[in-house]
Amino acid sequence: MKITTPTLLLDKQKALNNIQKMVEKARTSGVRLRPHFKTHQSAQVGEWFRDFDIDAITVSSVRMAQYFAGHGWNDILVAFPANILEMESINELASKINLHLVVVNIETVEALAQGVKYPVKIWVKIDAGYRRTGILPHAHNELDTILNAIQQSGKLQFEGFLVHDGHTYKQTEKEAIQTIHNTSVYLLHLLRDRYKNQFPELKLSLGDTPSCSVLDDLSGVDEIRPGNFVFYDITQQHIGSNTYQDIAVCMACPVVAKHPDRHEIILYGGSVHFSKDMLLQADGSPSFGAIVALTANGWSEPLEGIELVSLSQEHGIVRATPKQFEKYKIGDLMGVLPVHSCLTADLMKGYLTTDGEYLEHMSGVVQQHV
Amino acid sequence: MKITTPTLLLDKQKALNNIQKMVEKARTSGVRLRPHFKTHQSAQVGEWFRDFDIDAITVSSVRMAQYFAGHGWNDILVAFPANILEMESINELASKINLHLVVVNIETVEALAQGVKYPVKIWVKIDAGYRRTGILPHAHNELDTILNAIQQSGKLQFEGFLVHDGHTYKQTEKEAIQTIHNTSVYLLHLLRDRYKNQFPELKLSLGDTPSCSVLDDLSGVDEIRPGNFVFYDITQQHIGSNTYQDIAVCMACPVVAKHPDRHEIILYGGSVHFSKDMLLQADGSPSFGAIVALTANGWSEPLEGIELVSLSQEHGIVRATPKQFEKYKIGDLMGVLPVHSCLTADLMKGYLTTDGEYLEHMSGVVQQHV
Repeated sequence: MKITTPTLLLDKQKALNNIQKMVEKARTSGVRLRPHFKTHQSAQVGEWFRDFDIDAITVSSVRMAQYFAGHGWNDILVAFPANILEMESINELASKINLHLVVVNIETVEALAQGVKYPVKIWVKIDAGYRRTGILPHAHNELDTILNAIQQSGKLQFEGFLVHDGHTYKQTEKEAIQTIHNTSVYLLHLLRDRYKNQFPELKLSLGDTPSCSVLDDLSGVDEIRPGNFVFYDITQQHIGSNTYQDIAVCMACPVVAKHPDRHEIILYGGSVHFSKDMLLQADGSPSFGAIVALTANGWSEPLEGIELVSLSQEHGIVRATPKQFEKYKIGDLMGVLPVHSCLTADLMKGYLTTDGEYLEHMSGVVQQHV
Repeated sequence: MKITTPTLLLDKQKALNNIQKMVEKARTSGVRLRPHFKTHQSAQVGEWFRDFDIDAITVSSVRMAQYFAGHGWNDILVAFPANILEMESINELASKINLHLVVVNIETVEALAQGVKYPVKIWVKIDAGYRRTGILPHAHNELDTILNAIQQSGKLQFEGFLVHDGHTYKQTEKEAIQTIHNTSVYLLHLLRDRYKNQFPELKLSLGDTPSCSVLDDLSGVDEIRPGNFVFYDITQQHIGSNTYQDIAVCMACPVVAKHPDRHEIILYGGSVHFSKDMLLQADGSPSFGAIVALTANGWSEPLEGIELVSLSQEHGIVRATPKQFEKYKIGDLMGVLPVHSCLTADLMKGYLTTDGEYLEHMSGVVQQHV
């Protein structure tokens, strides 16, 4: 298959290795792996997980739940505050699969209690320190009110407490990540102790990619929900979640112009392909991806002396040393490891494996209807 | 039509007003308007331009040229350094329409001269100060080489010199934009004087949205190519290109959670909907969009005391004063004027007009094939 436009390459073997490592860590830790599928959003990549006996997944929207339900997944957690405007789709899903929703406010519980027609499992989101969303773990009155409302609702089944420690993404030291993780586990245990008489079966769920990758022991909860680990990216490498060799996706971008006066190379590949996410370097300058050499069946580690320094809508600007600059000619393909593989995959809407197979992404097959 | 998920609203009357104003300015300046369609990427929005006798357009990729050629446009400039890997698509297009390509390097001219089978019009891109891509205007040897190669090629027809002054996007003063524009016109005139004996018909093309919006007189060139003006956004408002009332697109996002402890509201609407582009405020904090009140047939001006302060993949975090916070309840829709309408439209893949009509965006209908 000849590549002529920006293309997201996927090394299946690397992704399989990443999946296998996480499956084994979950097994030795005695926790269930409920992987987050928002990173790949691909029916075919989803199938790779089945071979490791994964049967329950996490997604970030009702639409994504519909997509994967359509591909045979029947235990799906939508790890996002339930959107009560989508009651019709929620009911349609709940009539067919084991649907799990997340709540943060009593108003949402009341609306769901009124609106759902089929049993739905409810997770209460706890804010253990990230401060994006969730109920503070000491907000006992709020929690009592919400849990009682769930219990009295009939169709809603309280499943347990759920945490997302997004603040691990700002860390680069294992000990900091360990502290964040331990704090969350501690807080979840306090909550379980408080509510276990009322809900003897309640479960605890957490697990972002940094903590699930960096830490060796993930015991203490019932399930973990990492997502990015299937591909990883240079943000995760910077955190310490993975080595460069583990990164399973790589952009291939045509070289369309060269500027010998300043050793800059223009790529066909911009913010509509990569997204605008960037990683701040040690010197304060932004990186929009790490340049690698494309090989016959994959790509190298990042190259020295060549950087993707800027993106506009369709253009990428690469700055190079004179020596690196000379290696590229117009019409070549340049490899770039993405800063944030979830957003790049969402924009690219599909994958070309290094074996030459085309894999779909939900964004390329599901229409946005309004 | 009931809105249940993040939706990009489009006020057709505002877009028509924006188009009409630019058409009139082009007419009084005596220049041709060749609008850039990368902002809307919509067959239906394209039709609105035809009513103003627009018959030549600009796009930013061969794929976009194919899309609009498929909708009856037959004079299309791909304003991006020609990607020689797409020779097959280039030939297919050139066999059907009046295709214009842009070159920056002699290597590209040589590859095109070898590869094209039908007449193609060639614009030489000049870097008048933006320093993204283009040939420096004093690089006479380089220009001579390129122009001679075009002239000798047979199939390639030299059309003229083209500039994109992207550095106007960093300005907020009319005089600075005027200086940038005047400099480009001056440099283009020098080039025309130098090459008019060899190419008596050569044309001059420039025109970004800031200069075309802020300046009154755009004479001195043959054509202008603004794109963003059809919708505008808060980046352009910050530059001074438009008022808030001119912004023709607005996101409608469900409120999914509320945090009374810190007066933060969680929206269903994140970086996969808005893009990560942000606008730095006077106090150094980033804004990811301006909050407006949605009305029966549109939206208000930006509200005071409420800000979209952060985006993650699907979440938007809004910080409000206690008074603004109280106005919203879970299940409401919140209006957000985008930072960068081109990227938001590309991610949203379609529009809902305030008249209730659904309009397509190329990203929602054209598959990414590899």
